[in-house]
Amino acid sequence: MKIHDRSGFPNPARIRIVVAEKGLDSAIAFVPVDLIAAEHKQPAFLAKNPSGVVPVLELDDGTFIAESTAITEYLDNLDGNPLLTGRTPRQKAVIHMMQKRAESELLDPVGDYFHHATPGLGAALQAFKSPEWPGRADWGRRQGERALRGMAYFDRILQADAFVAGEAFSMADITVFAGLLFAEAAGLALPRNLVALTEWRSRVAERPGVKNRSGQAFLPEDARRLGF
Amino acid sequence: MKIHDRSGFPNPARIRIVVAEKGLDSAIAFVPVDLIAAEHKQPAFLAKNPSGVVPVLELDDGTFIAESTAITEYLDNLDGNPLLTGRTPRQKAVIHMMQKRAESELLDPVGDYFHHATPGLGAALQAFKSPEWPGRADWGRRQGERALRGMAYFDRILQADAFVAGEAFSMADITVFAGLLFAEAAGLALPRNLVALTEWRSRVAERPGVKNRSGQAFLPEDARRLGF
Repeated sequence: MKIHDRSGFPNPARIRIVVAEKGLDSAIAFVPVDLIAAEHKQPAFLAKNPSGVVPVLELDDGTFIAESTAITEYLDNLDGNPLLTGRTPRQKAVIHMMQKRAESELLDPVGDYFHHATPGLGAALQAFKSPEWPGRADWGRRQGERALRGMAYFDRILQADAFVAGEAFSMADITVFAGLLFAEAAGLALPRNLVALTEWRSRVAERPGVKNRSGQAFLPEDARRLGF
Repeated sequence: MKIHDRSGFPNPARIRIVVAEKGLDSAIAFVPVDLIAAEHKQPAFLAKNPSGVVPVLELDDGTFIAESTAITEYLDNLDGNPLLTGRTPRQKAVIHMMQKRAESELLDPVGDYFHHATPGLGAALQAFKSPEWPGRADWGRRQGERALRGMAYFDRILQADAFVAGEAFSMADITVFAGLLFAEAAGLALPRNLVALTEWRSRVAERPGVKNRSGQAFLPEDARRLGF
């Protein structure tokens, strides 16, 4: 299998953690996509994923699977032993609920903040982000505020439970972790008073599958290029 | 089990179709939520679902499951015979990919169009939709254009396949169907040149589980009240 992505970015980090947690490293070839040059918005990439986002999983028969939740479902179920997406109806339900909240209340708003209220990934990609829309910086800032409210929500969850979807590490933890990496890179630091979320982040960061795969939201060369 | 929702609305329609397709009607009690009075934005409802949206599934032990994908995973897997969310890793992946696209390219943009570029559900709910944000109508219109592009995308998919995620009816079809119901109610009619999507909609509308559950996006009394 191939994964079309760029290491160090938030949604690619989600799937690289899944690959490592499932022990699939040797089964995957990574194909780099130049996000800063907006390669993911060009026709060749849009033929793989019309939504124009990474990562994309390419199966050996040429089928392309986009969307991190879908890729996670695939990789987690390949061996018949789903560790990240749940076994029982109830586990599946809670994990998918918290996974969706991690996107809608944290990761997606951070992305909107980054691309609309900051210079984002630079001029090439900004051309695809509705630069003519006068309200976009204001909207981006509102999304940044939403992301900070999302962090406070997950802090409350983690005051009660060891992980985002209960007692076991799951896809929902991976999405919150990637959301916090992205937030920090975008300038939305985790507030110090969110102690439970901070402690959970430290625990997750020490997992072998996480530690070796996504220690930073952006690679150093990207950070320099983008002025972080 | 209980489902907190309001009949005739788009995300409730998704789950009511799931309930009917799975033959679970007699296992569910429906608890009405007054969306027009913004009951879903008040503390009593937010304790059930902090995201403040319907539907919410309440299990017999008092656990609340929000998010339509999560509720569908639960109900579809209860009998060990998942018909709507896939059996194999590949089926799960394609269904989740198309389900997410149906939300991000159609259903969600229609919702943003409806709530920001039109009077939406009226004054009580508009108070929770950032009325002080000057760019919101412009943003809502852009989302309406996105929804129309989404319809064209699903038309292309349905020129090649019988259903949204391939050869079998799935969760992804339900989401596109609900998206089109909502779009029509919001004033974004399905363009006549999208023949494959129009024919698919007619076929889906004739399914017993769909026909008896969600023939309209809004109940007649809501439509009158809202001026549709």
